[in-house]
Amino acid sequence: MITTIQQVLIPNGDRYQTVDVRLEGEKIGAIAPRLEAKGHLINGRNKLLLPGFVNAHTHSSEMWSRGAIAPLPLELWLAELYDQTLTDPEQVYLSALGTAVETLLSGGTTVVDHLSLIPGQEEASVAAVVRAYREVGIRAYVGPLVYDFSLPAGVPSRGRVRDIPPGEQTASEVLELLERIVEAYHRPEDGISIMAAPTGLQLCSTDLVEGCRDLSDRYSLCRHTHLLETKAQQMLVQEKYGCSAVELFNKLGFLGDRTSLAHGVWLSDTDIDLLASTQSTVVHNPLSNLRLGSGIAPILRYRQAGVNVSFGCDGAASNDSQDLLEAIKIGSILHNITDAEYQNWIRPIESVQMAALGGVTGLGMADQLGTLDAGKTADLVMYDLTSLSLLPRTDPIGLLVLGRPTNAIHSAWVNGKSVVVDGHVTTVDVKELRQRLFEHSQWNRLDESLPLDSASLWRRETEPHYRYVMGLTKGSQ
Amino acid sequence: MITTIQQVLIPNGDRYQTVDVRLEGEKIGAIAPRLEAKGHLINGRNKLLLPGFVNAHTHSSEMWSRGAIAPLPLELWLAELYDQTLTDPEQVYLSALGTAVETLLSGGTTVVDHLSLIPGQEEASVAAVVRAYREVGIRAYVGPLVYDFSLPAGVPSRGRVRDIPPGEQTASEVLELLERIVEAYHRPEDGISIMAAPTGLQLCSTDLVEGCRDLSDRYSLCRHTHLLETKAQQMLVQEKYGCSAVELFNKLGFLGDRTSLAHGVWLSDTDIDLLASTQSTVVHNPLSNLRLGSGIAPILRYRQAGVNVSFGCDGAASNDSQDLLEAIKIGSILHNITDAEYQNWIRPIESVQMAALGGVTGLGMADQLGTLDAGKTADLVMYDLTSLSLLPRTDPIGLLVLGRPTNAIHSAWVNGKSVVVDGHVTTVDVKELRQRLFEHSQWNRLDESLPLDSASLWRRETEPHYRYVMGLTKGSQ
Repeated sequence: MITTIQQVLIPNGDRYQTVDVRLEGEKIGAIAPRLEAKGHLINGRNKLLLPGFVNAHTHSSEMWSRGAIAPLPLELWLAELYDQTLTDPEQVYLSALGTAVETLLSGGTTVVDHLSLIPGQEEASVAAVVRAYREVGIRAYVGPLVYDFSLPAGVPSRGRVRDIPPGEQTASEVLELLERIVEAYHRPEDGISIMAAPTGLQLCSTDLVEGCRDLSDRYSLCRHTHLLETKAQQMLVQEKYGCSAVELFNKLGFLGDRTSLAHGVWLSDTDIDLLASTQSTVVHNPLSNLRLGSGIAPILRYRQAGVNVSFGCDGAASNDSQDLLEAIKIGSILHNITDAEYQNWIRPIESVQMAALGGVTGLGMADQLGTLDAGKTADLVMYDLTSLSLLPRTDPIGLLVLGRPTNAIHSAWVNGKSVVVDGHVTTVDVKELRQRLFEHSQWNRLDESLPLDSASLWRRETEPHYRYVMGLTKGSQ
Repeated sequence: MITTIQQVLIPNGDRYQTVDVRLEGEKIGAIAPRLEAKGHLINGRNKLLLPGFVNAHTHSSEMWSRGAIAPLPLELWLAELYDQTLTDPEQVYLSALGTAVETLLSGGTTVVDHLSLIPGQEEASVAAVVRAYREVGIRAYVGPLVYDFSLPAGVPSRGRVRDIPPGEQTASEVLELLERIVEAYHRPEDGISIMAAPTGLQLCSTDLVEGCRDLSDRYSLCRHTHLLETKAQQMLVQEKYGCSAVELFNKLGFLGDRTSLAHGVWLSDTDIDLLASTQSTVVHNPLSNLRLGSGIAPILRYRQAGVNVSFGCDGAASNDSQDLLEAIKIGSILHNITDAEYQNWIRPIESVQMAALGGVTGLGMADQLGTLDAGKTADLVMYDLTSLSLLPRTDPIGLLVLGRPTNAIHSAWVNGKSVVVDGHVTTVDVKELRQRLFEHSQWNRLDESLPLDSASLWRRETEPHYRYVMGLTKGSQ
């Protein structure tokens, strides 16, 4: 299959140029000012072509809770979320479809799904998202969200003796499950990769982290985890291990050039240098970090230290959208308030590079994806620059990153295959998807006979101790 | 004209209820679980009805520069913007159309346009936006952006003797012009109000501020200005007047219950109390404050002190969109990182109240607008809850505020008149508007024969001194 995109704008250093782009099978065959009009011809006039972005951290099944959880800090928000666990793999399938569609329609061609598993239906959960991502045709990295501690273990003790229940599965049980999932679903050549993705040090033993590391070595898997999202997590690791989470991950051999770490808000300069020297990637999830009050990740310092940074939406219960362009915009401008030296601020063209090349670098794919170069795999997105939201004509990438593009995605290709045409996802029926999401859900607080939402069981258990730990109770400061 | 919206969701305290809503002429006639099916019937099923929001601070003509200016702090960004001044009132008309359409399609039914005037064509500039807002049918407050100092006066001296050129017009010339504009265009009964809106203390003499105050008293105009957007502005007023900008505005009699103040980032607790006691309104422009590195306005403290707060997009050169829902989302979640006490965080229903009732309160219209009550004027927006971005069904307002609603506006009414139907603005031809915005503009940096953008003349003049003032030059700290 040969396609020629004719006379499309692409960035070229600090300028733009108008070119023809040839797609040959899975690859970008050629890029030049004029190419022979071969194969399927696409009019690229008044459009901008960019490498596809990576939604480098999300939890697809959280879509069922989006909009539903009150503004709360992570530890209490998580307690609420735990009470909204899904039970039906069909729901997991539908939210993965939704996540994939929203990612594609906001410039993403790859999704990293740190996937919550339904207890007792773990493999069916993975099967459900793999089916969804194959149907949509998005490139997917699925990291089963595994842990071997119970939820209360995720909050520091701060000197209190607490009765923390054991986790529901041991590290070795979890690792056996993971290996079965890898055997069954890890098919990178088909665009579906399984990741070794422990939840984080707050809910995982060092045995589990080391087991994940070994599994990733054995099967050449990418590694993924949460890193120092909140101040409480920083306190917890320090209290438990006497070192920082980065130092511990480094000791455990978990860092490296195919390791991506979500959040990275509470790091010291030493930690940052360690991420740089191990070539690890930080996934910046600005909207989630604001919504949960986690803080501002020191992204400008990461960039100065040479740490690769990419963008994620995070799960829809903590964002609550899967619009990658929104995450890129806020994740770029948010840091202007952290450094008076404006020469360090992120420029729009740099945001695009972080979202594309930065994203694939964290997945060990920088040699195959992330730039517009002949020979690379064709994961591409073409934007319609005549959308009202991108007018008047000024700087196309400035408009895309700093504006709020609406109905701006014209086309997308993953692995050379067309998945969006004229603003519509062509591989799945989005109208039917909406209908099914609608039917499987209910608006909250509509029935007067039901009591108003009150704190979940888990939250009620967690909240007094959390307030003590964070110095929010009188006398605890 | 009578319209009955049937079986639509509305918020009711912390719950939702399904009601019929009768529109009678300009007013909300009745709201009840069931009303007689009178007049034009509209199916409200699976839709949410809210009072229209206020885009409480913008500069419509900046749309011509959106996406174009590099990430820079306000004082240098402004220098760049000054070199992009428009010359044709037709452009001013088109950008007002664009601003109105984007505001309507993101939940706003009122726009506050702090309008840059084309030098020498000041009245024609106002005429152009008034024409645009009448055509679209949006409620508009137009505050001509007046000043009597030259741009370099806007940066503190920090002990340096500087040769600051005089302004191009004197305070009395400006005030005469303003009065002519008020006489010609102030028609609140038709939905077009002129405001007394000096740029701010950084570019206006106290004579001009007092003259604006007198004009507002004489013609019952709302007052509007920029307040302490940047640290440099805080330094400047202190250096020049030996007090804070709030104290000075108070002395000058400019504060009050129809005074709205854009930004309010650099205020002391005493300043905040002064705003509360004078019943002044702060307009929060979170995206602009991030993009320009201005800081985070202390919105939670405003709320605790009883200061009314509303939301604005700010001009499209500093945001660079006019999507009010984006400003509401970021302006709500941004503050979660400023206070560990999560019980103070803004809940989605409160965000909606700030955007609607908060907005009209700052314009002295709280008795007529801003809530869903029979007898109030019908400025309403109805959201389609079956948009993919608002699914699955959970909490409709949680989804609207914390998500990223896309194609979610179903209908809008201003003053009882329908202006959006089925997602389309019906009063103007948006396709033609796009065409005209396209034709009147050019993409930047496409022509290789032209030099790359370099700093504007004004910026080159301003930058060395700005760096000295902000301690960004070696030896200046």
